[in-house]
Amino acid sequence: MTDSGDLAAWIELSLVSGLGGQRFRSLLSTFGLPTNVLKATRSQLCRVVPEAIAAGILERNSASEVQKALQWAARPEHKVLTLADNEYPKQLLEIPDPPALLYVAGNAKVLSCPALAVVGSRNATPQGLNNAQSFARVFSQAGLVIVSGLAIGVDSAAHRGGLEGRGSTIAVLGTGVDIVYPRRNELLAQEILSRGALVSEFPLGTPPSAGNFPRRNRLISGLARGCLVVEAALDSGSLITARLAAEQGREVFAIPGSIHSPISRGCHALIKQGAKLVESAQDVLEELGMAAAPETRSAEPSAGHDLLDKMGFDPCDIDGLIARSGLTAEIVSAILLQLELEGNVASLPGGLYQRVR
Amino acid sequence: MTDSGDLAAWIELSLVSGLGGQRFRSLLSTFGLPTNVLKATRSQLCRVVPEAIAAGILERNSASEVQKALQWAARPEHKVLTLADNEYPKQLLEIPDPPALLYVAGNAKVLSCPALAVVGSRNATPQGLNNAQSFARVFSQAGLVIVSGLAIGVDSAAHRGGLEGRGSTIAVLGTGVDIVYPRRNELLAQEILSRGALVSEFPLGTPPSAGNFPRRNRLISGLARGCLVVEAALDSGSLITARLAAEQGREVFAIPGSIHSPISRGCHALIKQGAKLVESAQDVLEELGMAAAPETRSAEPSAGHDLLDKMGFDPCDIDGLIARSGLTAEIVSAILLQLELEGNVASLPGGLYQRVR
Repeated sequence: MTDSGDLAAWIELSLVSGLGGQRFRSLLSTFGLPTNVLKATRSQLCRVVPEAIAAGILERNSASEVQKALQWAARPEHKVLTLADNEYPKQLLEIPDPPALLYVAGNAKVLSCPALAVVGSRNATPQGLNNAQSFARVFSQAGLVIVSGLAIGVDSAAHRGGLEGRGSTIAVLGTGVDIVYPRRNELLAQEILSRGALVSEFPLGTPPSAGNFPRRNRLISGLARGCLVVEAALDSGSLITARLAAEQGREVFAIPGSIHSPISRGCHALIKQGAKLVESAQDVLEELGMAAAPETRSAEPSAGHDLLDKMGFDPCDIDGLIARSGLTAEIVSAILLQLELEGNVASLPGGLYQRVR
Repeated sequence: MTDSGDLAAWIELSLVSGLGGQRFRSLLSTFGLPTNVLKATRSQLCRVVPEAIAAGILERNSASEVQKALQWAARPEHKVLTLADNEYPKQLLEIPDPPALLYVAGNAKVLSCPALAVVGSRNATPQGLNNAQSFARVFSQAGLVIVSGLAIGVDSAAHRGGLEGRGSTIAVLGTGVDIVYPRRNELLAQEILSRGALVSEFPLGTPPSAGNFPRRNRLISGLARGCLVVEAALDSGSLITARLAAEQGREVFAIPGSIHSPISRGCHALIKQGAKLVESAQDVLEELGMAAAPETRSAEPSAGHDLLDKMGFDPCDIDGLIARSGLTAEIVSAILLQLELEGNVASLPGGLYQRVR
């Protein structure tokens, strides 16, 4: 654990504008700990960083911000981990650009667990969301921590699945760790806080800014042993995460879909480039050398099973199901609801239902 | 061209029961042409083949069958090609087990054209059938001959697509070339005869027999530069064709689909084993070093375009489309019909429509 005097120096140095991760690490390797960097003279600093950055370090004026961050970090559920910390996640030390500081809210221990990134589109299909959540649940059940980006769509479904298993989930934010974005994920963020962790490299209070999200993606992949892309269009940010994962030597996995679905194109592009096509969570676990744990959910009633068999995988309406099953409308509706709650069936627009697994 | 005396000997030898392709070729390499084999003594034959086979050759009793085959071959639209023929397809000479004889009905010239195998399930989805036909049409338009097996489902759709372009199509049969199986493809077989070719290595009159179809598959892949699997379950015969294609050094291509569709599992298994995932005919043509020719079909009416945009890729019903488009029921129905005829939309059970490209 970094002591509080040292931590203040780490935070103070990290707040110097324009000082990127690489220069931060150059300064550390020249001067040692941040306290020494902050004591260095202009001519000493200028041997390592450009003059403007040296000026930024010497003329720093962030005392109150540092104070706030220290107060934040003093709460039991909060931590600021530095590169020098034992708790700093080892797997991030392997990536080309590990952040100097990590703000962590929640259970920092999950940062050291074996983890898998599960990412994808904000505009996923019902089936894509279902895949994200059910795959993540199986991964979590097998002991993996699910890393994602707290976006709506696949990210949120992945976090939820992670919370449903015995593992946990980590949301890596592109904002300050004290800012939940998008706001509609406030409740999900609370759940993640209670069992997993929210993580950010950005200073407290950093608002959403488009440029920060792609940069954040290297931590999603970096914290994980592999990266699964569930559904993604060709211009999806998930493809950035997948590329970074590959560059970091992580396995990349992608779920295929219809060639006519624009939201499967990104996954197909990844598979063409060498990502592993996966059809089940088991495929991923096997590739990672892990076995799947048995699902803990209760067995499906046999009436549901029968109706599922009769549904096939094409979309169908209730009338068709009544005709095929010989059951009454009330019973079919009740079974469909149950199947939907169990995640076996998705309801589509226009009163249609589709078997999804 | 094999002269008719020689041809009679080729046919006579090929009708010897139990004489497989490998022994046939061993006899040829020892004795030269089949006429010499038929003149050889028991002791000469027994140096090359087991005694039972030698006996079969010496005690052959197929004169009337040979006569019938020669009569068949004498018709202008028929040919029996032997390994010694100039017209025997060169690409079959590259495979481990080329048939000694090929019975060809139709235009034998197409056997020497660059070709692509397009195969898949007999139980394909409407979308799978549409993919097979439209991919095959683009391949044909680019000058490729489509090779398939005349089965119902994907095979039939592939042949049809092949006939729609400027290329052509070859059906490789597991029966005698004079037997159309399944019978319901009689009309399709007639169309193939008029522009392409029916091919079989089996003697005339050979009825359908389960054991002959897997064996036939090596010719489907062998005649082609690559093999595209459109939709296939894990136990599909198409996977045999794909495996043979790979063993013959042909490119294997597969179209992905939903991980929840059993009929995509075979394609996914192939991709996991190294087949190229393809999303478009263009993907295949590029891999083969060919460019796609422009489609010759007429431009779609813009009303159709607009409705397609409004459909998205989810199944929908007419009422939903009326609401989304603001058009009358009559106009929506007319456009849907047009779109379906153009292959842009498939009709699903229950009065639903789905955009398929």
